[in-house]
Amino acid sequence: MTQTLEPDTGTTDTDPQALVDAWFADFEAALKARDIAAAADMFATRSFWRDLVAFTWNLTTVEDREGVAKMLEQTLEGTDPSGFTTTEPPTEDGGVVTAWFRFETAVGRGRGLLRLRLDELDGGDRAWTFLTTLHELKGHEEPLGVRRPLGAEHGANPDRVTWLESREAEEAAWGVETQPFVLVVGGGQGGIALGARLRQLGVPALVIDRYARPGDQWRGRYKSLCLHDPVWYDHLPYLKFPENWPVFAPKDKIGDWLEFYTKVMEVPYWSSTTAVNAAYDEESGEWTVDIDRDGQPMTLKPKHLVMATGMSGKPNVPDFPGMDVFKGDQHHSSRHPGPDAYRGKKCVVIGSNNSAFDICGALWENGAEVTMVQRSSTHIVKSDTLMDIGLGDLYSERALEAGMTTEKADLVFASLPYRIMHEFQIPLYDQMRERDKDFYDRMEAAGFELDFGDDGSGLFMKYLRRGSGYYIDVGAAELVADGEVKLARGEVSHLTEDTVVLQDGTELSADLVVYATGYGSMNGWAADLISQEVADTVGKVWGLGSDTTKDPGPWEGEQRNMWKPTQQEGLWFMGGNLHQSRHYSLYLALQLKAREAGIPTPTYGRAPVHHLR
Amino acid sequence: MTQTLEPDTGTTDTDPQALVDAWFADFEAALKARDIAAAADMFATRSFWRDLVAFTWNLTTVEDREGVAKMLEQTLEGTDPSGFTTTEPPTEDGGVVTAWFRFETAVGRGRGLLRLRLDELDGGDRAWTFLTTLHELKGHEEPLGVRRPLGAEHGANPDRVTWLESREAEEAAWGVETQPFVLVVGGGQGGIALGARLRQLGVPALVIDRYARPGDQWRGRYKSLCLHDPVWYDHLPYLKFPENWPVFAPKDKIGDWLEFYTKVMEVPYWSSTTAVNAAYDEESGEWTVDIDRDGQPMTLKPKHLVMATGMSGKPNVPDFPGMDVFKGDQHHSSRHPGPDAYRGKKCVVIGSNNSAFDICGALWENGAEVTMVQRSSTHIVKSDTLMDIGLGDLYSERALEAGMTTEKADLVFASLPYRIMHEFQIPLYDQMRERDKDFYDRMEAAGFELDFGDDGSGLFMKYLRRGSGYYIDVGAAELVADGEVKLARGEVSHLTEDTVVLQDGTELSADLVVYATGYGSMNGWAADLISQEVADTVGKVWGLGSDTTKDPGPWEGEQRNMWKPTQQEGLWFMGGNLHQSRHYSLYLALQLKAREAGIPTPTYGRAPVHHLR
Repeated sequence: MTQTLEPDTGTTDTDPQALVDAWFADFEAALKARDIAAAADMFATRSFWRDLVAFTWNLTTVEDREGVAKMLEQTLEGTDPSGFTTTEPPTEDGGVVTAWFRFETAVGRGRGLLRLRLDELDGGDRAWTFLTTLHELKGHEEPLGVRRPLGAEHGANPDRVTWLESREAEEAAWGVETQPFVLVVGGGQGGIALGARLRQLGVPALVIDRYARPGDQWRGRYKSLCLHDPVWYDHLPYLKFPENWPVFAPKDKIGDWLEFYTKVMEVPYWSSTTAVNAAYDEESGEWTVDIDRDGQPMTLKPKHLVMATGMSGKPNVPDFPGMDVFKGDQHHSSRHPGPDAYRGKKCVVIGSNNSAFDICGALWENGAEVTMVQRSSTHIVKSDTLMDIGLGDLYSERALEAGMTTEKADLVFASLPYRIMHEFQIPLYDQMRERDKDFYDRMEAAGFELDFGDDGSGLFMKYLRRGSGYYIDVGAAELVADGEVKLARGEVSHLTEDTVVLQDGTELSADLVVYATGYGSMNGWAADLISQEVADTVGKVWGLGSDTTKDPGPWEGEQRNMWKPTQQEGLWFMGGNLHQSRHYSLYLALQLKAREAGIPTPTYGRAPVHHLR
Repeated sequence: MTQTLEPDTGTTDTDPQALVDAWFADFEAALKARDIAAAADMFATRSFWRDLVAFTWNLTTVEDREGVAKMLEQTLEGTDPSGFTTTEPPTEDGGVVTAWFRFETAVGRGRGLLRLRLDELDGGDRAWTFLTTLHELKGHEEPLGVRRPLGAEHGANPDRVTWLESREAEEAAWGVETQPFVLVVGGGQGGIALGARLRQLGVPALVIDRYARPGDQWRGRYKSLCLHDPVWYDHLPYLKFPENWPVFAPKDKIGDWLEFYTKVMEVPYWSSTTAVNAAYDEESGEWTVDIDRDGQPMTLKPKHLVMATGMSGKPNVPDFPGMDVFKGDQHHSSRHPGPDAYRGKKCVVIGSNNSAFDICGALWENGAEVTMVQRSSTHIVKSDTLMDIGLGDLYSERALEAGMTTEKADLVFASLPYRIMHEFQIPLYDQMRERDKDFYDRMEAAGFELDFGDDGSGLFMKYLRRGSGYYIDVGAAELVADGEVKLARGEVSHLTEDTVVLQDGTELSADLVVYATGYGSMNGWAADLISQEVADTVGKVWGLGSDTTKDPGPWEGEQRNMWKPTQQEGLWFMGGNLHQSRHYSLYLALQLKAREAGIPTPTYGRAPVHHLR
């Protein structure tokens, strides 16, 4: 997902800077003249324009000249774009000229990435991929660097309110004298990153979380858990992990970081707080949210409600006959307490993806007898291999040494169109398949059913399409390959008092059954908190509409419902991995800031709902 | 202190890179041949070589060819330096060629800064200032960047010890199964920065602090307190303040950062712990330190003891007749609880430096009647002015934009010889005097006695020479200029039940007397903890021997006893402002690491003691 896109055709043989300058000159002239056909003509026959907020007040990918024209018809006048300028010399590679640029709109400033190449069909150097992103709102620039706050109030002021007093007063006023413009339900990495961005933008916002301390979402997990993504990929906004931070942070270390990040970034955050009920009033454009704050009922009235409860929705707990008679322990993987109570016990784990492997591994390390029940195929990639081949060009020490920054890496990543991303993933996963051939052979020899995604495009596409169906191997797979963890294949028929019986009659003795059976769509939380009606209005969350397993079409173009306007006014979804939390929190925060500042946000292409869950 | 040094004479007219390359070629050849006279001859008639650890295992400044020769006679063979190479193109300005370089020694790698100019007397381009610093020890490179720890333990391991378990076990073992190689007494910014560096270098070290939480040293101060140095100057090692951090952080924000930093940098730190007694055994080369850990007595046996109790030593509480009969509140400024209890009260503050002004300002803001008693002159600089003119070229947004980094700024700063620093400060303070002329006139019109240091060299020299005698004005001075805070001049004669009586007979009614009367030398803490004998062995801490007020000669060349070997084996002093804590913690940590790793550390020029306090 991180390599240079390499198409079949190249650009005409001109100095890249001259080429790009000429393209931008023509493009901008067309835009200024409101000549949409001319602007669309700057694009290749097969092309993609991804706009994050700047033009569309949405996260939007349009395709080809037709898509570009349609989008501009609705957005060009209001956006009033100008000032397209490269920010460093463009580069050429394999026939593609890549250019970093900045631009302005009526209300903001943006950055983007352009890829030009020779149009096969119609000739001429045209845009193949075009990314425009809103970076800041004019008049609402973040107080960073030269604009950082002074901190000290110089002078002698008998009415001085110190920073601490000010923070305490703000804290006490929520729900009493002041209402948050945005209420963020869920204070994990997503809620925290968004909270930090909103704070920076001056949007009155409050993050609520049911745990006792920020970071507890991590602390409470099974003891061997570490991050699966490497550090360079994981930074939070504004405050990166230091140079001595481990590649894969242990859960407690991440918990500590999140706790103090919340504090030093001054994220308004209420722990031990649950959201009980929420209802939207269309007329006032306001939510009424009943919360329980550490035992105290309260009501908050935000204008916007963000569900940041985790991109994994509600646990899918299966309903097998006999679950009511089973005498041992049974729980969904999300409620698994860890292995300590199960030394010497027979443990059956239903499922074969990430949670299943982690839990099987931890149980085995603690001397349990473990059987994994695989019901469908799983895509496995070794952690080191993924880090090197999958992420290394953008997120690694070598990337840093080559001059890549986190901010640029995020934009490069964002500039790769979802529609064709799989084409660029497939060769990477072919490499991974090759590098770890011996491992894969041994897994299959042990009876494990492997896949590399429906189309061989591997882990990241699986993640984007369905958020599941894979395991980033940090060692537990060897246990299956070796037979240390036993493997059973097939669907579950029923449970008895002390066994799990598969459909083929296999009986597995069990003291513990763990249902590592995944999660539903995030709108399940909305159903609980708000109503089924609203959950259905919003529809399925996550996925691209790729018409692959668990990601039915039609093609969405972007992640369903994530970080952008939904069909329910005032309701938003925040989440994803640490990379997405870092990057996409910016766009969600800007959309919320614009609303708070009274800046018009005419949304182009608000996605219709095709699936309810 | 931050501007380019501009001497009278220039270099010969040659390309700077060629000039520097030639100089280093000759210098290195002389060093390799052990031709000390030839090496010394590379230096100008008036020149300075400052070595931080690399050659001298000390912080050392030698002067002129004679000083260079003497130092090399003792250190050249053991150091075995080589590989002097520029790390970027040298620059020329006003006749001085400045070159960043790296080099190696037998045991380490270093970085430095060279300034060449045409030697007035003997001709030729010679070294005017030469800074060599040890940056890392071979075989003990810090696990940063490409060497950062993996974090996760991949594989399946029945004996897995998680990160959390490992940290908890380490914590429980101190003083029981393991002894710290280094015990750091005092957990403010100095102890914390050193603790982080030692952790990085793998030196078993423990920081103990009497407060309940890291950062409490700041939280417990008067409520309006903010840092007086701007953020770019204040970063801690490894983890810089983020871009949105205020210029002058309020005390509680700094407290939170220090607490956060201690945790995420994994500094082994015991709060609520006081050091009760310490004694050194020469034979075993070990300290026996009795501590009180949250009520529990314990004994630790470190090889090295670092006093990080603050460069302000024990409070100087004066002994005026009548203090025993005074009926109001009286306390040293370090024990001042803040202004809340003194609304409407008559408050007399003895002293006119930083603490006095801060306390007078806070009292005034809270509606007290305040009189400041000035006993000797004070140097005042406005905060904005100091930040701009004093620090701006090295530590500011504009410095960052010009390509300056914190690390380079620290080395530039370190490369300015203390001996001549005042010459470069004087013009800066002339500028400041000019810029704020109106303010200074009004202060003097109000009767305040101003100075700009004994030789007009201003605040930073006062700080280096005596650590006191100035006020960085953040607004309280206006109160004196306006007469809102009354000013009395002269020495105190005695107190009565309710007045302070000055030697000229002036009677000042008082409900509160605050003795803003400064602090003693840090070795006062050593006297308390260890013995007066050891305190006298070590002698006065801080100051340069400049033969100015409170900094008697002879010339020391470096800060007395700070961050380097003292006359008491195994006893070290750590401290200074945030800049010094950040930078000099590196050199102290490397010296301690070398001892822990068994690397020979033949110390050149361990400073003799000229003053006891």
